[in-house]
Amino acid sequence: MSTVRNVLFVMCDQLRRDHLSCFGGRVHTPHIDALAARGVRFDHAYVQSGVCGPSRMSFYTGRYMSSHGATWNSVPLSVAQHTLGDYLHKAGRRIALAGKTHVIPDEAGIARLGVARDSARGTLLAAGGFDEIDRYDGHTPPGPESGYADYLRANGYRSDDPWSDFVIAAEPDEGIVSGWDMRNVHLPSRVAEPHSETAYMTDVALRWIRAQGDTPWVLHLSYVKPHWPYMAPAPYHAMFRDADTGPIVRGPQDGTADEHPVVRAYRSHDECRSFSQESVARHVRPAYMGLTAQVDAHLGRLFEALRESGRLSDTLVVFTADHGEFMGDRGLGEKELFYDEVVRVPMIVVDPDSRADATRGTRVAHFVEGVDMVPTFLEALGLAAIETYCEGRSLLPLLRGEIPAGWRDAAVSELDYGFRAARRVLGRGPGECRAFMVRTSEWKYIHWEGFRPQLFDLGGDPLELVDLGADARFETIRAQMRARLFDWLAGLRRRTTLHDADIERRTATHRSRGIHIGIW
Amino acid sequence: MSTVRNVLFVMCDQLRRDHLSCFGGRVHTPHIDALAARGVRFDHAYVQSGVCGPSRMSFYTGRYMSSHGATWNSVPLSVAQHTLGDYLHKAGRRIALAGKTHVIPDEAGIARLGVARDSARGTLLAAGGFDEIDRYDGHTPPGPESGYADYLRANGYRSDDPWSDFVIAAEPDEGIVSGWDMRNVHLPSRVAEPHSETAYMTDVALRWIRAQGDTPWVLHLSYVKPHWPYMAPAPYHAMFRDADTGPIVRGPQDGTADEHPVVRAYRSHDECRSFSQESVARHVRPAYMGLTAQVDAHLGRLFEALRESGRLSDTLVVFTADHGEFMGDRGLGEKELFYDEVVRVPMIVVDPDSRADATRGTRVAHFVEGVDMVPTFLEALGLAAIETYCEGRSLLPLLRGEIPAGWRDAAVSELDYGFRAARRVLGRGPGECRAFMVRTSEWKYIHWEGFRPQLFDLGGDPLELVDLGADARFETIRAQMRARLFDWLAGLRRRTTLHDADIERRTATHRSRGIHIGIW
Repeated sequence: MSTVRNVLFVMCDQLRRDHLSCFGGRVHTPHIDALAARGVRFDHAYVQSGVCGPSRMSFYTGRYMSSHGATWNSVPLSVAQHTLGDYLHKAGRRIALAGKTHVIPDEAGIARLGVARDSARGTLLAAGGFDEIDRYDGHTPPGPESGYADYLRANGYRSDDPWSDFVIAAEPDEGIVSGWDMRNVHLPSRVAEPHSETAYMTDVALRWIRAQGDTPWVLHLSYVKPHWPYMAPAPYHAMFRDADTGPIVRGPQDGTADEHPVVRAYRSHDECRSFSQESVARHVRPAYMGLTAQVDAHLGRLFEALRESGRLSDTLVVFTADHGEFMGDRGLGEKELFYDEVVRVPMIVVDPDSRADATRGTRVAHFVEGVDMVPTFLEALGLAAIETYCEGRSLLPLLRGEIPAGWRDAAVSELDYGFRAARRVLGRGPGECRAFMVRTSEWKYIHWEGFRPQLFDLGGDPLELVDLGADARFETIRAQMRARLFDWLAGLRRRTTLHDADIERRTATHRSRGIHIGIW
Repeated sequence: MSTVRNVLFVMCDQLRRDHLSCFGGRVHTPHIDALAARGVRFDHAYVQSGVCGPSRMSFYTGRYMSSHGATWNSVPLSVAQHTLGDYLHKAGRRIALAGKTHVIPDEAGIARLGVARDSARGTLLAAGGFDEIDRYDGHTPPGPESGYADYLRANGYRSDDPWSDFVIAAEPDEGIVSGWDMRNVHLPSRVAEPHSETAYMTDVALRWIRAQGDTPWVLHLSYVKPHWPYMAPAPYHAMFRDADTGPIVRGPQDGTADEHPVVRAYRSHDECRSFSQESVARHVRPAYMGLTAQVDAHLGRLFEALRESGRLSDTLVVFTADHGEFMGDRGLGEKELFYDEVVRVPMIVVDPDSRADATRGTRVAHFVEGVDMVPTFLEALGLAAIETYCEGRSLLPLLRGEIPAGWRDAAVSELDYGFRAARRVLGRGPGECRAFMVRTSEWKYIHWEGFRPQLFDLGGDPLELVDLGADARFETIRAQMRARLFDWLAGLRRRTTLHDADIERRTATHRSRGIHIGIW
């Protein structure tokens, strides 16, 4: 019997793994580090896409982007996809949400199937299976599905849009300025720290957890930070300085004709044009680091409350991010593409079960992926017997010191850049912009639809500075990596209306169904 | 303006292309030949799987098996899949069904979404988008969704199960015997020919067409023959003799250690054990050929009625099959696998529009596929502007003498043999039994999950007798064919909740939605 009764699934948005002190980073994150000491750090955790929507849909469905089909931020999650919420509901449980999911409702699918949009089922389908306590995606002003705007007004921030006017605004001597303009992110936000997004959502989570009393619960606490707008409240806005921001990675091919055409096309985007200037990166990084430190501080509050209430002993805690960001490395800004700054994320899992005692504080090098979360949660809650269409695997054995047979020896990630300006720079149609990464312990290979591949020798070039995708000497390696991707593509779960167990039960049973073929 | 007002989509079940006289076969099919003279014969028409369910779901959705997910006969068609019926309903039209679809309702999906099963929507979803006038899949006794059992009883066939007792039974001197036992298929069925399955369903179709009057219509007339049980009514049971049944193809590797392991595993199935005996093939082929001749005769009746009512001038007519069958060739019985006997089907399309006059009676060598039907019908009905998730292409240009740019130069087919006994022979799990064929004008290559590939040199070996899949001399060819499959797998339409046109419209529009990223 597992002692796990609750699951706390904490996600940060756009948080780079290499910024956290427990992963060797420059931001001191004592509470996250303490979490790592109680659990396992996964050193090779990859997300299924380096952008919010598709990465999160993989976390929430346990399926790869090619399987769930929500290939970019604006793409609705099909009503046909089973989410973590579906599996939990089937077992009489639920998953509550405080914060961001980036689920885009499949309104057309809901309407086609005649589901009343305001029914319990319609609400749940539109929310990707989450019970939305307070939904707030963070990149536009909070809407009615969040209490944040009212909360701000109740605390004296008088505005129709207190987010734009206070949370992501600053007020230097010359008047109110916006955090959208990155030149302003050295200034403190106009909200007091206790009223900031991170503080507010932590309060929502704490209140909800307390309200559950002894009832088992599953909560997705999903911070919108340190994602842009990079506006930190005092004192976090000034916690770091230029000198703290570390090296900025530059490769010999950056911006040259040797660079991959898609990477070069991304350089035309605003965020890359801005971040290609080292001064911009040095100006923004301190705010990003401050926002990260702030998340850590509130997690400290949260973990302390769990400890006080005894919940640390029966709660599985996950801390991770939907993807990272470049912050000027390689002269790039924002996310997408397949460099480790973006697709390799922090992941810490604390399993309160005593069987996990031996792994506490350890680092695990095996490849794990966003798709592994759903099966991990289900197994931890004793719901492993519920069949799923998940393409991931439960991490529980790894947490409990076992290495399951045939554990994956590579991670996969995908991208659909059809919505991005880079597509037009490259003269491609909306359906011709897909890419697939496979990353082993030695190599990272990226297949780009319509272009040459990328290849990096992670042994000799761990920072992925020299793209060997066009180097004739590595054709054998590329063929091997392509073969891996072929197998992965061919092996995706296409059949979603019957389980393997159903098929096992029905194999070669036609005679029992009155079908007597082939009899002489 | 197209003159097409109606669509008649005729499908036979398990009909081999090479049996029809207009494709060089030994069964004289004057009415199908006349259809060919009025339209276009597609010489390289491939189905997306060599077995009823997945092949038909590709015909009905316009999507490959890996995309629609109904990977075998028993697998429900997900409610999320858009069918031809969906596209037509969106345009205020409908598609009527007389005969077989093999659609397995996605009961779990319908229930999960709270759709009332007996509502119009529930009925339509469960039927794969068809308005079922008379649904009869033909491999078990007709159920209440067909009027056939009552019709038989009304015509004097007194039985609770007149299909088993009369239609697929014979009555030699020694008593009543079943057509399930193939030794009996030289005998005439116990039904009179006008009451046979093919006659009955033609009557249903004719009556329905007449009832439409001048209202435009779309009808899927889907014969269950010449599929087993191979019981033909007189005089068709005796129309052919052993001497008419032609050569039986045998290859040098058949049943040897050089044979592909999956093919060898199929030989353990009853139908292959029976058909591996030439005497069985010679005994069954005449019945199969008789059933084929009978379909032709009833199509003659149907086409004559269309002619008389003027419908030939405004009706697009398609004649095809869901797959073929071995009938003892290679010592195999039934279907599946990827030989041309099974996956290359007859396909004739008559476009009444005068723009198609120049192609009448011609043969087209370009590769066409089952997935092309939905876009063909929609374009013919002037509904091409409805965006679809189809992976096929309209055949209308080919019918009207154009060769669209970038027409495919290969056909693809798939198989999931997880339900078959062969899986257990091979010791594989239900989810480990997939195969993918790609066939160009020169080569046929088959990727088998977990096994070596198959390769056939169609130039030098058009009967596919020598499998070069393990021959070291052909590794370059295999690599080229594998690369084609890779591109096909990578290019499947994963995103089904947004159209390309939506993405075109929304590309790089984040600023207009208030998201001001990357601005310095």
